[in-house]
Amino acid sequence: LSKATDLGLNNSIFADCTADRIVASSYSEFALNGFSVVTCNKIALSAPLESWSRMREAFASSGRRILYETTVGAALPVIGTIRQMVQAGDKIEKIEAILSGTLNYLLSTYNGSESLSSLIKKAKKLGYTEPDPRLDLSGTDVARKALILSREIGINREPQDVNISPLVPKAILDQSADLFYDRVEQWEEKFAKLYKDACSKGEKLRYVATVSAGECKAGIESLPANHPLAGTEGTNNTIIITSSDYPSPIVISGAGAGARQTATGVFNDILIAGL
Amino acid sequence: LSKATDLGLNNSIFADCTADRIVASSYSEFALNGFSVVTCNKIALSAPLESWSRMREAFASSGRRILYETTVGAALPVIGTIRQMVQAGDKIEKIEAILSGTLNYLLSTYNGSESLSSLIKKAKKLGYTEPDPRLDLSGTDVARKALILSREIGINREPQDVNISPLVPKAILDQSADLFYDRVEQWEEKFAKLYKDACSKGEKLRYVATVSAGECKAGIESLPANHPLAGTEGTNNTIIITSSDYPSPIVISGAGAGARQTATGVFNDILIAGL
Repeated sequence: LSKATDLGLNNSIFADCTADRIVASSYSEFALNGFSVVTCNKIALSAPLESWSRMREAFASSGRRILYETTVGAALPVIGTIRQMVQAGDKIEKIEAILSGTLNYLLSTYNGSESLSSLIKKAKKLGYTEPDPRLDLSGTDVARKALILSREIGINREPQDVNISPLVPKAILDQSADLFYDRVEQWEEKFAKLYKDACSKGEKLRYVATVSAGECKAGIESLPANHPLAGTEGTNNTIIITSSDYPSPIVISGAGAGARQTATGVFNDILIAGL
Repeated sequence: LSKATDLGLNNSIFADCTADRIVASSYSEFALNGFSVVTCNKIALSAPLESWSRMREAFASSGRRILYETTVGAALPVIGTIRQMVQAGDKIEKIEAILSGTLNYLLSTYNGSESLSSLIKKAKKLGYTEPDPRLDLSGTDVARKALILSREIGINREPQDVNISPLVPKAILDQSADLFYDRVEQWEEKFAKLYKDACSKGEKLRYVATVSAGECKAGIESLPANHPLAGTEGTNNTIIITSSDYPSPIVISGAGAGARQTATGVFNDILIAGL
């Protein structure tokens, strides 16, 4: 930053494509030095309210922009759509969404013939999970996204206000990496029962985030087959936005992850920030 | 315009909320006088290529912007999403869409118990149709939207290159307004058969626009119940965008018409044009 400032690079755009905490903590400084920030890093946007507010204030006072479309649903037009609705005076009443390609891959692929632990290993091999899959299974990533969406609709929650039910029990996630798959296997039977119960009702298991004035939560839900979220297959994401002004919700669906999509989204944000 | 120019109102935004041909023909002049244009009027955007190109050129040379998000799917983020994908270097391979709330209301509500002509009268009463419903039933409105989408993905077609099959036969649409409902009733039986054939296969009738390098068309199609367009109910619109960079299509669905939504979309475009 000091080098960029020395070079007189104000009125520039800083793009953060890391998932780094230290980089995330520097956004305010960039803003105050004349930079707009484009980021796919969720950390600063889902930070505790105090540091989040300080960061937003730095951008407001400096007149710089911070754009982060790719933090939720990669390049799907989620944050931008919500921001435009809010700017136009609409009131977002509820967001229901599938926000994890990883968890949706597991839940939409599982059919009882292959064990969950085997599917987790496969998802890891395919590059769908974090290097440590426990980070996906814990729901932490979805919690951050739900928090970003909550703040976007004007409800400024703290991270601990997001009510997360992990995909596998917390006790198993707390195991060391070696013991982890072993414990998932021991727990399989309970998951298989959950799946069978859903099937017997003609329903589908999905990992759903819900954000409204009254709640901010995420966890497995059993959904009727005709529910707009139930049709989300593979690593796709789906976001349902219910608002005061729209007679029926807006539904946005498609690839919600992937390097190419995220790069596209970051590039779009850079183009917008440069306008 | 001359009054606005006299007042020194350059660097302003002209918003066209009419469906007027004369207003539409003035956009170039506005651009050359320093105005950006925001419009929900489809006429200039779906004009013959020669006048369309001249209009685009006026905006390119003057550095002014023309924004028209609401011409397709009202405030649903359709044009903006496609434009961003194209700007980011993605190639849109195909768009399949339900673009008429009116026609979708008729096709999704019809179940054989109430006649099509009665439903048309009801739709007119509910304000879902143009004052003359023949303008909706002819598919002209969908054709304009398909043409706008085609040009947006870089395929500059002439209006007559859009292959339109009206919802009811052209011979009936060409009748005078008095004879029209009478003739629709005479034709009902054929429509009922179309509906029954679809039902017997577990399919649904929808009025679908398809835009790709190879085709630009719109007409009734019988779709499998699990097709992403088949679930579109009432006056909603759904747009499916298939591109090179996305492993699965982007689907955008929701209220695609309505004064309030269109006003929101126009307001958003004004905010963007003012950036």
